Amino acid sequence: MDKDFSKEEKDGLYKAIFSRRDVRSHFTSKSIDEEILTRILKAAHHAPSVGFSQPWNFILIKDEDTKKKIKESFERERELSSDMVKEPRKSKYLSFKLEGILDSPVNLCVTYDPSKFGPFVIGRTSIPDTGIYSVCCAVQNLWLAARTEGIGVGWVSILSNDVLKNVLNLPDYVTPIAYLCLGYVEKFAEKPDLEQAGWLPRLNLKDVVYYEKWEQKQNSDWNKIQELIKTNLDYA
Amino acid sequence: MDKDFSKEEKDGLYKAIFSRRDVRSHFTSKSIDEEILTRILKAAHHAPSVGFSQPWNFILIKDEDTKKKIKESFERERELSSDMVKEPRKSKYLSFKLEGILDSPVNLCVTYDPSKFGPFVIGRTSIPDTGIYSVCCAVQNLWLAARTEGIGVGWVSILSNDVLKNVLNLPDYVTPIAYLCLGYVEKFAEKPDLEQAGWLPRLNLKDVVYYEKWEQKQNSDWNKIQELIKTNLDYA
Repeated sequence: MDKDFSKEEKDGLYKAIFSRRDVRSHFTSKSIDEEILTRILKAAHHAPSVGFSQPWNFILIKDEDTKKKIKESFERERELSSDMVKEPRKSKYLSFKLEGILDSPVNLCVTYDPSKFGPFVIGRTSIPDTGIYSVCCAVQNLWLAARTEGIGVGWVSILSNDVLKNVLNLPDYVTPIAYLCLGYVEKFAEKPDLEQAGWLPRLNLKDVVYYEKWEQKQNSDWNKIQELIKTNLDYA
Repeated sequence: MDKDFSKEEKDGLYKAIFSRRDVRSHFTSKSIDEEILTRILKAAHHAPSVGFSQPWNFILIKDEDTKKKIKESFERERELSSDMVKEPRKSKYLSFKLEGILDSPVNLCVTYDPSKFGPFVIGRTSIPDTGIYSVCCAVQNLWLAARTEGIGVGWVSILSNDVLKNVLNLPDYVTPIAYLCLGYVEKFAEKPDLEQAGWLPRLNLKDVVYYEKWEQKQNSDWNKIQELIKTNLDYA
């Protein structure tokens, strides 16, 4: 494998990043080719992990009974959370389609097992949560790989972890990190649903980048990037 | 932008995933082109985020004084952690080069700000940590984008978050998630350093995938993938 990336290879990576969406609707019933599913799981498994601990597991789910129980948990948690927000935002919140648990052919729970290769894991001694961070990197690899294969992924986080652990028989020491819905889609939206619906705007890049210290927006050592960051770049 | 991915575009994504490394050595002193740095920050900013909350900030660092303080924290934490592991692994652990703080031209701290667009964030009500998960996805986007640009990234997690917060002036409510070292490199290693050194092996994909429930390795609904997962696939 050549060390350097061609223009096309580079474009592929950026295209995946900028066109990836959190998919909650437009799933088709078409089964996911199992060779492709294996490939995107392999992509996830090649994520970085603290101390090379590879603390993830992937539970593939298509059992309807399991899906229904998870969907019930979603309904319950959504109901509970809707009391945290006032009208008119409450009604808007409740009008959003936020999951595709029953509509997608494959559900996938990605878990964190801190016992793997433990207890001493290089790099996890000062900040124990870095094990969880590794699992999130695996989810993002999977999400991008799925996008290149035309497979939509939706992350359902309005769920009770207790229900998830119970339904999937997770041991006490294992934490569910992501519950994902996977399937081919009719289309990928141009913009994130919540941006499209006017719920929240995308922040400007210049407003999330600081120089040397928190909230420092001006620094003479970084003049050029401060200019560049305000302009539009090739990869929009 | 065409919805579908060409063979080359797809290859680019998988190549980035499989050839990405945690880089601690082989950094060159060459400055990072600021247009490229902006582009990889933009890739990070286009990560998925719970409720579209975009809870990340990116603090770019090249100040030598800051780097030295962070390096001191690394040394201290490494010393402390080495008492957690017995000989002969302790000596082996201490022999590894685990960071490139002073060797890399740019350091980058990626932070989590739970107050952004809060307190009510869609999807963060049942599992508050999902905000942190979003930041990790941004780190992985950045890591992959950097790889396609020939830029190595190393995540230093043997650090005190208290020191980081103090040195970078982070407010109490902000959490540092990742401290990264960025720079061009002489080469990307074929395998992760800790695998190459025989510290830990890469797990087989088949050993991290379960079917329907925790630890279920056999399930008649998933026969085909159970076979496939044992074989080598195209993207090795």
